[in-house]
Amino acid sequence: MTSISPLAPASFPEMPPVAGVRLATAAAGIRYAGRTDVLLALFDPGTAVAGVFTRSKCPSAPVDWSRARIKGGIANVLVVNSGNANAFTGKSGRAATELTARIAAKAAGCKPGAVFLASTGVIGEPLDATKFEGVAQRLTAEAAPGGWEAAARAMMTTDTFAKGAAAMVRFGANVVTICGIAKGAGMIAPDMGTMLSFIFTDAPMAPAILRRLLREGVEDTFNAVTIDGDTSTSDTLLAFATGAAAARGVAKFTRASDPRLAAFRKAFDAVLADLAEQVARDGEGARKLVEIVVEGAKSKRSARRIALSIANSPLVKTAIAGEDANWGRVVMAVGKAGEPADRDRLSIWFNGIRVAHKGERDPAYDEAAVSAAMQKPEIALKVALGLGKGRDRVLTCDLTKEYVAINGDYRS
Amino acid sequence: MTSISPLAPASFPEMPPVAGVRLATAAAGIRYAGRTDVLLALFDPGTAVAGVFTRSKCPSAPVDWSRARIKGGIANVLVVNSGNANAFTGKSGRAATELTARIAAKAAGCKPGAVFLASTGVIGEPLDATKFEGVAQRLTAEAAPGGWEAAARAMMTTDTFAKGAAAMVRFGANVVTICGIAKGAGMIAPDMGTMLSFIFTDAPMAPAILRRLLREGVEDTFNAVTIDGDTSTSDTLLAFATGAAAARGVAKFTRASDPRLAAFRKAFDAVLADLAEQVARDGEGARKLVEIVVEGAKSKRSARRIALSIANSPLVKTAIAGEDANWGRVVMAVGKAGEPADRDRLSIWFNGIRVAHKGERDPAYDEAAVSAAMQKPEIALKVALGLGKGRDRVLTCDLTKEYVAINGDYRS
Repeated sequence: MTSISPLAPASFPEMPPVAGVRLATAAAGIRYAGRTDVLLALFDPGTAVAGVFTRSKCPSAPVDWSRARIKGGIANVLVVNSGNANAFTGKSGRAATELTARIAAKAAGCKPGAVFLASTGVIGEPLDATKFEGVAQRLTAEAAPGGWEAAARAMMTTDTFAKGAAAMVRFGANVVTICGIAKGAGMIAPDMGTMLSFIFTDAPMAPAILRRLLREGVEDTFNAVTIDGDTSTSDTLLAFATGAAAARGVAKFTRASDPRLAAFRKAFDAVLADLAEQVARDGEGARKLVEIVVEGAKSKRSARRIALSIANSPLVKTAIAGEDANWGRVVMAVGKAGEPADRDRLSIWFNGIRVAHKGERDPAYDEAAVSAAMQKPEIALKVALGLGKGRDRVLTCDLTKEYVAINGDYRS
Repeated sequence: MTSISPLAPASFPEMPPVAGVRLATAAAGIRYAGRTDVLLALFDPGTAVAGVFTRSKCPSAPVDWSRARIKGGIANVLVVNSGNANAFTGKSGRAATELTARIAAKAAGCKPGAVFLASTGVIGEPLDATKFEGVAQRLTAEAAPGGWEAAARAMMTTDTFAKGAAAMVRFGANVVTICGIAKGAGMIAPDMGTMLSFIFTDAPMAPAILRRLLREGVEDTFNAVTIDGDTSTSDTLLAFATGAAAARGVAKFTRASDPRLAAFRKAFDAVLADLAEQVARDGEGARKLVEIVVEGAKSKRSARRIALSIANSPLVKTAIAGEDANWGRVVMAVGKAGEPADRDRLSIWFNGIRVAHKGERDPAYDEAAVSAAMQKPEIALKVALGLGKGRDRVLTCDLTKEYVAINGDYRS
């Protein structure tokens, strides 16, 4: 649709296979021609699963399906399709999820309740689940370790690059692997996570531990990214732990007090943070990656709200697109957040240059130096409130004419 | 800067003078060259004033000034300037308001505390109030009845047309006049009113009655308009009642139970509604005026929140710019509002054509008919939730590439 985001990583990262996970992709012709649109992941028996989902009051049928089955904590199959979100499709949407799960379960030899589903693409169009029938046998037969980039690619909609991240954690002589893939470029807002992201590890882990890691890890990663403030009906983030590393001598994680969890959490959070940043880097029409840091707030929660108010302000985002260090609009966005703020204590920096100090233009404010800094592809915007110790960080991107073009033409 | 909005009224309305109000404008060279940028209004002694202001935590210096003096309820002078909002200007900003008020008071022969101020334009630049000195004497000398279009024009920033509205109310043999002017095209969000609007009437009215009329009238007019969800630091809406009609035999309005108030309120609200709609019609880059009606909600408040969630969604707004009846994005925006909604009871109409019914695509949905309807300059978007009797209405506009262009270049 468009050229690759100028903010994309140079290449897809090197990602090792995760023991206990086999992947396959296919072109089922759901909407797009000449590209893959279905991802199947097969898990070894006993794989633990945890998930967080959109908080939308109008979630998609696959979100309903997966949320209803996540408490069981066990997964055998994941089926993801792009091209159709199966959202706002009523009874036929529910029927489509049931049929998809039955088809996948039959091909994989498991129960439909152990199949997890996620869909992304256009909303409100009926999803013809019989299209999965034609590819299910081949997908299960061909599923193999690795192949992360192909997997990430099958989920793409308006994404301009495939998103993946990996980390390894050493426990004595053993190594545990964490791999994640994500998709998302628009309709991204921090009311849960991104549209779709899946994390896979061979660590042996009780579902309750995985659930906790995911819930805590998402707060400062996916939940701290916003492209346009629009929360998807389909946001789904699932983590799968196959436990295959147990065969290599890694003891199962069963208690939150396990001292090994600190190292695992660090690697797990790094994968989430990497994927979340890639989502911001692929924001529709984005030409600038924008990091917003708010410090000196009354609390971290207050800092988050102010950072999001700035990150979602069309006037701030268009100013950054225009390479204009328009801190007046930042003041506006701080002011409208409804959080404690004292105009006369406020200081603002763009890429390290202080442009406003204690409620006035910085005496040393040099328009030329700031203009040069604004031409960089990465913009660090810092706001100091001078009220307390609350600090938070949010990632976003600029708002360009390309965003409007992409979203004015997407469906037609 | 840009051509006149295609949604602008054909011409500025016929507006009679309001007895007790004299107007004058001048080019003080605050920022713009070759155009007026100061409006002075002189009021007869005893003129009542009421106001509502931005809820921003970082309000402009003139908002602080006027808010501090509004309780007195009496006004002699109004000074409005464009080109500089005198916001986030620290001590020098406060000094500028004091100096402006002193200059105006001296020229008009009143106390500085009876001078009301409003500024609009760039944020964070010091305002040189001595520029008022050069024009104050001439403004007070030249002030004359009428001249509404020139007054509205002196306040414009990115506005593409001057905004005015008038109404007359008959009480027996007497007629009372209400005239209003407004400015605002961006940084408009329903957290108080618009950027600047001023209403003038010759009705004799106690400040408490005027205050109540204004507070109640703003709810379904200015507070129900959003361009970009960005709340200004400068939003100011002031109403002035000169009482000059008392000399013609109109008794003073002193009690909320006065039976004549119903007719006056109707005319007053009509002026507010007309001006608020003109603000939406001049939304930066707007090509479509969008009316969003939400009905069947749990309450009016819930309907308002859902309507605003739709109105502020970049994805809905860009779809409308692309003439795409993308009701899937409407579902998304309903879902993210956080208000009670049942996907399976939801129905959606674009310009009277039902595109979705009870949670699914309408069986009679004809893409060609809807596409034709979407080409109109005015789009009526209706959402029925099917849960209760709550109903509300919000006005907005589409989000176009021109919005991005205007706001990426505004300051530079």
